[in-house]
Formats: sequence, structure tokens, C-alpha cells
Amino acid sequence: MAQIYDRVALIGLGLIAGSMSLAMRRAGLAGEVVGYARSAETRDTAREIGLCDRVCDTLADTVKDADLVVLCVPVGAMDSVAAEIAPHLKPGCTVSDVGSVKQAVVAAVAPHLPEGVHFIPAHPMAGTEHSGPRSGFATLFDNRWCIIVPVEGSDPDALQRVHDLWKGMGSFTDEMDPAHHDLVVAVTSHTPHLIAYTMVGVADDLGRVTDSEVIKFSAAGFRDFTRIAASDPTMWRDVFLTNKEATLEILGRFTEELFALQRAIRQGDGDHLHDYFTRTRAIRRGIIEAGQDTDAPNFGRGGAH
Amino acid sequence: MAQIYDRVALIGLGLIAGSMSLAMRRAGLAGEVVGYARSAETRDTAREIGLCDRVCDTLADTVKDADLVVLCVPVGAMDSVAAEIAPHLKPGCTVSDVGSVKQAVVAAVAPHLPEGVHFIPAHPMAGTEHSGPRSGFATLFDNRWCIIVPVEGSDPDALQRVHDLWKGMGSFTDEMDPAHHDLVVAVTSHTPHLIAYTMVGVADDLGRVTDSEVIKFSAAGFRDFTRIAASDPTMWRDVFLTNKEATLEILGRFTEELFALQRAIRQGDGDHLHDYFTRTRAIRRGIIEAGQDTDAPNFGRGGAH
Repeated sequence: MAQIYDRVALIGLGLIAGSMSLAMRRAGLAGEVVGYARSAETRDTAREIGLCDRVCDTLADTVKDADLVVLCVPVGAMDSVAAEIAPHLKPGCTVSDVGSVKQAVVAAVAPHLPEGVHFIPAHPMAGTEHSGPRSGFATLFDNRWCIIVPVEGSDPDALQRVHDLWKGMGSFTDEMDPAHHDLVVAVTSHTPHLIAYTMVGVADDLGRVTDSEVIKFSAAGFRDFTRIAASDPTMWRDVFLTNKEATLEILGRFTEELFALQRAIRQGDGDHLHDYFTRTRAIRRGIIEAGQDTDAPNFGRGGAH
Repeated sequence: MAQIYDRVALIGLGLIAGSMSLAMRRAGLAGEVVGYARSAETRDTAREIGLCDRVCDTLADTVKDADLVVLCVPVGAMDSVAAEIAPHLKPGCTVSDVGSVKQAVVAAVAPHLPEGVHFIPAHPMAGTEHSGPRSGFATLFDNRWCIIVPVEGSDPDALQRVHDLWKGMGSFTDEMDPAHHDLVVAVTSHTPHLIAYTMVGVADDLGRVTDSEVIKFSAAGFRDFTRIAASDPTMWRDVFLTNKEATLEILGRFTEELFALQRAIRQGDGDHLHDYFTRTRAIRRGIIEAGQDTDAPNFGRGGAH
């Protein structure tokens, strides 16, 4: 893979930025990767483990002469970071991000960027429940999708290079408009996360089932929920605050369906339950056929009933 | 491991019975394993792959001279199977089961069993989303818990042998009373499954997000939900119909918490969300420390945001 940018600046050195740096290094996509994190401790860790080629102590130094600047901070921090870097951006550079919400990021970032800077938002659909500068790994994006969300007047060449970068890091890429993106992820990611957080919270509250029993007998289902519910709290707070409308819409539909199933349980309507549970199997088969999960026996983690 | 029973009869040849047969064979726990399934097709498959030592065509032949009979059928079928085998049970034998609900199974099975037959219900907390005679594997129970639920007057020796059997198949064992068991699994397994089924159903219904997008961009969270929601519909229908009270109680608490989080999103109360998401991280750490999951980066399945 040929080099795509001479200098890439990563702002925020958590799971995604760390994995990007390692994935770019693996494929030789950038001449130099420069990083910045607000916390001095994170910067020290990043230097210690050689996460980037260079770690800077100020935002101005980080973006100086960078051809691509990627905002890898929680969605709620995008506005202030964009305001602070704007005066120091190299003319003609590209600014991108990895936020899980796109309408709010476009609204927060675009107004700050000077004429001649290309803004190409993106959202890699990849992650783990871990966070921080030590959590990244080079293969995180392999065979996962990165959704690129061009804004009005996006420069075709700048857009193509962002596609090439993500493909070079192992991803498939696709394009979507911001509103549609936010609805899709509300269904496939945001609402499931909120539900998992809720269920884990309920278990934690329940006095009669002691903590140790919940943990000891955590079965598939709950165990998967706890993994999801261990994700970074700040990032997820910002996701729900900024993708409010789509999340609330999907939550409303979810509650409606849940009440229908709850009524079927109360009334002993086995046919309703069986039909519903049969229908949901088909979606699973589609995901396996699409190569987005495997059919292996639960990756060796026994599930449970 | 020494042989524990001369002859074991498995009724219902799905994931659990198949895995039991293979796990008993691995450790030499039974002199002979005899199997039965209602469907002739399942019996043929079991014979073809050598799942048991012998597959019988009637329940009477299957339980004849068996020292241990294990009911591995959906909870809703326990009553009729118990009624049919009762006259053919060997005096002094042990009857057990692997049902995910225990109060309903005790109520369905115990009244049919003749004097002198020991009834020792059990629930292996292990499984996958797969079902049928080809889905079993010998390591399914390794390092998972099996909850044994003694009923009043359970014979201590018969109880000990059921413990030994499950330990021999790789499990840890513990004991619980039926009502407490049903509450614990309502929290750690049944309600999470219902929620996962619901969320997958919502995604399926949503016209604007096409099926292919839901599948293509299925991220951690939703992808995990689809795996859970691919489990056997008949088994899960019976679980919810027979563990109605505990499931409805936990669902009520879940809805209450979900509404509180929904209100926090609507009102933009970031502190509430952040506090909640921070608290749920601790439970995850407990599960990893208890050895019931690993901290590996999502088993190579990238998650997503």
C-alpha cells in the first residue's frame, strides 16, 4: 500500500486513534503520525509505548503542517477542539473524525473550519469495550465497515483519499448522509447499548440476587450485555446526548414491542412468542452470510439458558 | 474419572443432550448412553453421527433399566414425557432434567414419579444459539456452572452422583432452591434474551433502515443481540411461559430504569447518564475476575459505536 498522507495528526489517543496509528503503520499509509491527548498521563503513556511517531503537548503543534487531522475525541468535545485547531490548520488539509454520531459532529465542527480546508466526517464501525491509549491494536478495523459522510461541496479528491486511508487500514467503506447514518446506528448500535447498560444496572440494583450470583451465573445474554455495558462512559454519554432524536425514536418502538411481548407472557400466548422468536432467527443468518460474525459455537464462551 | 452410572437415558437429542453424551463419553462416566427423540429424523441423525451408544424408538425402551434418566426436552414437554416414562422407570433410578426453569419443572415432573425413584432437577448454565442433534460438543460444559436444585427429601447419595456427573462433564456445581434459581436466571438469562429478541424484532420492522443495512452495519451490541435472538424458539417460548412471574418482575424493573435513562436523554442530563454508565463497568470487571469471560479484545470481533 502506498503512502496516502505525508503527515497525519490524531487528536485524542484512545482506542480508535491508537488502532488507527498502528493500522497506518502496518500498511505504511502515513509519512508521520503525530498525536495529542488532553491528559498529560495519556500523552506519557503514548510516548512510552511508541503509539505514534511523535506526541505533542499542544493542539497547535499537533496539527501544524498535517495533511490530515482526525478528531478522535468524544462527540461532546468536538466543538471546542475544532475551534482551537482551526487557526493552525494547513491550507488545503483534510479534517476528519471518528465520532459515532454525524449530524451533531457536522454541526459542531464545520462552522469553525477555514475556507479551503476539506471536512470529510467518517465513522469506523469497530471497537471493543476497552478504552485508553493501551487499548488500540492494528487489526481493529480489518473487515469492518467505515461509513464516510460527505458534507455539501466535499472535494472529490479529498474524499477519495479518506476512502483509501480506511481501506488501507483494513476496512470496507461506504457513504451515507448524516441523518440516515444517525438512524442506522441508533438501531444497530446506540439503542442496543442503552438497553445493555439498563439491564446490567437492573441486575446491580437487585438486592435478592446478590452481586456474586449475578457474576457467578452470568450466562450468555447477560454476559454479553456486561461486555457492551463496560464501554467508555464519556463517549456513550455524548452519543446519547447528541443522537437524541433517533435514539428516542427507536427506544419508543422498542418499548412498544417489549410491551406486546410482555402481554403475551402475561396472557400465556405461546404462539405469539414462538412466531416472534422464529422471525428473529432469519436476521442472524443474514449477518453470518454477510461475514460480519461467525457461526462458531459462541467463540468458546458457552452461552446459557 | 470413574464410571458413575451403568446406563444413562437422554430424552430429547438437542444441543444439551448431545453435548452431555459426548462429555460423558470423553470422561467415561456412563457404561452405556441411550437416547430418544420424538422426531424420527432426529433419531436417524443421532444414529448416523453416533451421538449415543444406542438410539431407541420408544420412550419405554429408552428408560428401561436406566440408572439415570435425563429429560432434555423443552420445559413445556416435561409433564407429558414424565407421565409416559413413569411406569417404565427402574426402581431406585434417578430422574433429572436440564430445564432452564425449575419451579415449573418440579411441579410438572414430581407428581408422576413412583415411590423410590429419586428426582434431582438440574440446570447447566451453558449453551449456544444452535440447536438440534448436530449442535452438541464435548466441551460445552467445561468451566460453566450447573445449578442443582434438590427437592424435599432428595436422597443424599443420588444427589451426590448428579454432582459427580456434572463435575465429570467439566462443570462446577452449586445448589439452589427452585424459586431462587428462577429469579437468578430471570436476571442473568431470561430477561436479557427477551430484550435481545425484542431489539432484533424492532430492527426487522424498521422500513427506513433496510434489512441489508442492519446486517451490513451490525455492530457490537446489535450483532451480539442477534446471536442471542437466534436461539431455539420452542425452548424460549416455554421458558417465558413457565418462568412468567420472575420474568415479569424483572421486566418491570427494567422498564422503570429504561424510562429513567430515556428521560435523562430527553432532558440532556449528561451527569445521570455518565454516572449510570460508570457503575455498570464494575460488574463487568467482576465477571472477568470470576473467570466467566475473558478480557480479550472482543474475541476478534470488532465491536462498534
